[in-house]
Amino acid sequence: MMEYTRMTKAQLEAEYKTVSARFEELKAKGLKLDMSRGKPGKEQLDLVSDMLTVLSKPEDCVADGVDARNYGGLEGLPCAREYFAEILGCQPEQCFIGGNASLTLMYDTVAKAYTHGLKNSPKPWAKLDTVKFLCPSPGYDRHFKISQSFGMELITIAMTATGPDMDAVEEAVKDPAVKGMWCVPKYSNPEGVIYSAETIDRIAHLKPAAPDFLLMWDNAYCIHEFEGDYVPFPDMLSLCAEAGNPDMVFEYASTSKVTFPGAGVSVMASSVENIQYMTKLLSIQTISYDKVNQLRHVRYLKDKEHTLALMKRHAAVLGPKFKAVLDALDTQIAPLGIASWKRPTGGYFISLDTMDGLAKRTLALCKEAGVVMTGAGATFPYGVDPRDRNIRIAPSLPPVAELEEAIDVFCTCLKLAALERLLA
Amino acid sequence: MMEYTRMTKAQLEAEYKTVSARFEELKAKGLKLDMSRGKPGKEQLDLVSDMLTVLSKPEDCVADGVDARNYGGLEGLPCAREYFAEILGCQPEQCFIGGNASLTLMYDTVAKAYTHGLKNSPKPWAKLDTVKFLCPSPGYDRHFKISQSFGMELITIAMTATGPDMDAVEEAVKDPAVKGMWCVPKYSNPEGVIYSAETIDRIAHLKPAAPDFLLMWDNAYCIHEFEGDYVPFPDMLSLCAEAGNPDMVFEYASTSKVTFPGAGVSVMASSVENIQYMTKLLSIQTISYDKVNQLRHVRYLKDKEHTLALMKRHAAVLGPKFKAVLDALDTQIAPLGIASWKRPTGGYFISLDTMDGLAKRTLALCKEAGVVMTGAGATFPYGVDPRDRNIRIAPSLPPVAELEEAIDVFCTCLKLAALERLLA
Repeated sequence: MMEYTRMTKAQLEAEYKTVSARFEELKAKGLKLDMSRGKPGKEQLDLVSDMLTVLSKPEDCVADGVDARNYGGLEGLPCAREYFAEILGCQPEQCFIGGNASLTLMYDTVAKAYTHGLKNSPKPWAKLDTVKFLCPSPGYDRHFKISQSFGMELITIAMTATGPDMDAVEEAVKDPAVKGMWCVPKYSNPEGVIYSAETIDRIAHLKPAAPDFLLMWDNAYCIHEFEGDYVPFPDMLSLCAEAGNPDMVFEYASTSKVTFPGAGVSVMASSVENIQYMTKLLSIQTISYDKVNQLRHVRYLKDKEHTLALMKRHAAVLGPKFKAVLDALDTQIAPLGIASWKRPTGGYFISLDTMDGLAKRTLALCKEAGVVMTGAGATFPYGVDPRDRNIRIAPSLPPVAELEEAIDVFCTCLKLAALERLLA
Repeated sequence: MMEYTRMTKAQLEAEYKTVSARFEELKAKGLKLDMSRGKPGKEQLDLVSDMLTVLSKPEDCVADGVDARNYGGLEGLPCAREYFAEILGCQPEQCFIGGNASLTLMYDTVAKAYTHGLKNSPKPWAKLDTVKFLCPSPGYDRHFKISQSFGMELITIAMTATGPDMDAVEEAVKDPAVKGMWCVPKYSNPEGVIYSAETIDRIAHLKPAAPDFLLMWDNAYCIHEFEGDYVPFPDMLSLCAEAGNPDMVFEYASTSKVTFPGAGVSVMASSVENIQYMTKLLSIQTISYDKVNQLRHVRYLKDKEHTLALMKRHAAVLGPKFKAVLDALDTQIAPLGIASWKRPTGGYFISLDTMDGLAKRTLALCKEAGVVMTGAGATFPYGVDPRDRNIRIAPSLPPVAELEEAIDVFCTCLKLAALERLLA
């Protein structure tokens, strides 16, 4: 194989003929494969079936003298706060336990900033003419959409191999209209980058002009290695407090990719003062979250050590899926010089950059051949990738055999898109 | 016994001596009793223990081809939408299934009106100078607090024996700043009033000046008879549609007082167009609610008939508690002419009106004697009862023996407060 850009027109035309034929062959199969979302596969869901019955009698539902079945205990069961504090490396009183979605806790935080203001807000953000939010990109579309839904101006910050471009971040936060930043600090979505110690330190020491700057620290993949051992990660709450920014950070995590994606437990962690402030606001919208499910999780997951052992079993399922994708890319695409990609060891995605201008076309071809991927552009603010090149591959849902088919389709479509371009 | 207002000063003084002595006696017991909230008691929670294990294997978690454990299905499992449609008498596609709290769905509806506007809103309510909301009172404090938390002006509407004073409501909605009304149409909180057919018809036919008038129809006690058979209730969605107001009403209900108060399933029902509009907005804040718990409920509760049979078992627990309170009031208070109260046959509360100006003092005395009640004034907008007379009694939580003690304390405190006033 030869790099496409070094091929003569005749060689490109020959290759186009071969790849087109392959594409038609694949299309004829009538596939229906999904690599669009970081959904765990059935094998992973089945790993935790014992959790379903871990609470089976009335007396199982009482913890620390609290009947988990009844109303009350908005901040969460004490044992659930302790559990998540150990996972995150912070204190139980800094942990607020929510329902099945950390996304909802993130939305609630931003929504409260908008309607009521945060603890240190001079006024609710709804009363401001302009609110800007920093979006390290490629990033997570659902984060960006929360900001967008409140009419904020999304500022793209480039991602580097060590996290967001901190020179750009430090410059941007001098603007008092810049009210916050989205971060997935460990195994970033979609690149799988672990923020470096220096990046984290510079973030903790930010001196934003906005007194209520909101660091959205979505630690979604805090224990989600699929290759190698658990990678320790610093407690951002302590680091921000030490840097004189105790109220700047809200951290989020959940068991969505530990137990059941749709029926897990989420946590929001911040300074005790922030948690008290938010608890008061959240008390208007609910009496308490589902404490039975909280207790089910604590009884089943037990503690960090026990949970990390479970994560090894998830890794045993996920590892081969990531390998299948990377192997196909290495074999089929690497020699052609038409794309580059990251090799993550945790998280749920592989981020691939095509030659400029090929992402949309590649994914349109995939769709034609029955493979659904995350929409092109989704990893950038407003869904617009300025170079139309980033593609998020989510290998977790399909079984390996299906995944191999899907990635074969993907490689074929990427080649075809590149050839179309080079022959145009 | 004799009515207090007919007593001579000497008689009042003698009675005061007796009642004071009794109060001191009770206080000396060091009681710690709670009649503050409509929390079901342990006996009720234990009724539904089989639900804990109704899903015990992976294959139990699949319904209509959907794996309830995974992400997706924001509107809820089809079987859950069908279940609640039968309970409410509406259509499955009108039902949106939420998490463990209907209060959160109510908050979300109001919050979305405020930040984004409802389907028929000319603009988000946050952009308006004044938003007014009608609060039939006595009513539910948590409803009023949602409106209050968004800075709305709360308009008190008198409650009558047949529901809100409709002359006042029809007059009030001529003001375009009046954007909605809170209703608990069956066994209203706290009075236990069932809105009459005429009241319901007049509400459905309202012609509010606001094009986005929001009828908050909290059908919290839709199947919650504790005495007698299930009382059929009209489907407000149909009635509003027939009256030309298809988008005016949002209805809410939950299983909080059917299964587990803190771990139930909630529903929001409205026109298909409203549900589609809200689903789009809610898709920003969550991928899906806890479908495992939805399925657990559907498998356990089965259908309306089966659920009504369970409600009979709840009634068998609750009925004697309400009777204990009413018996004590009939025996100890009725002859004295110092208070009046409703005799509900469903719901979770007894609403009592003292002579004007006694509610706060009565409850302060209760607290002194170790009995916690809902705060005086809580049933009115801003927590201020203009006549300081309404007291909400919540008999559901304490076991009957404790409840008898608590209501004895309450009667003593009410008498003492009345005597203090008459002797002042």
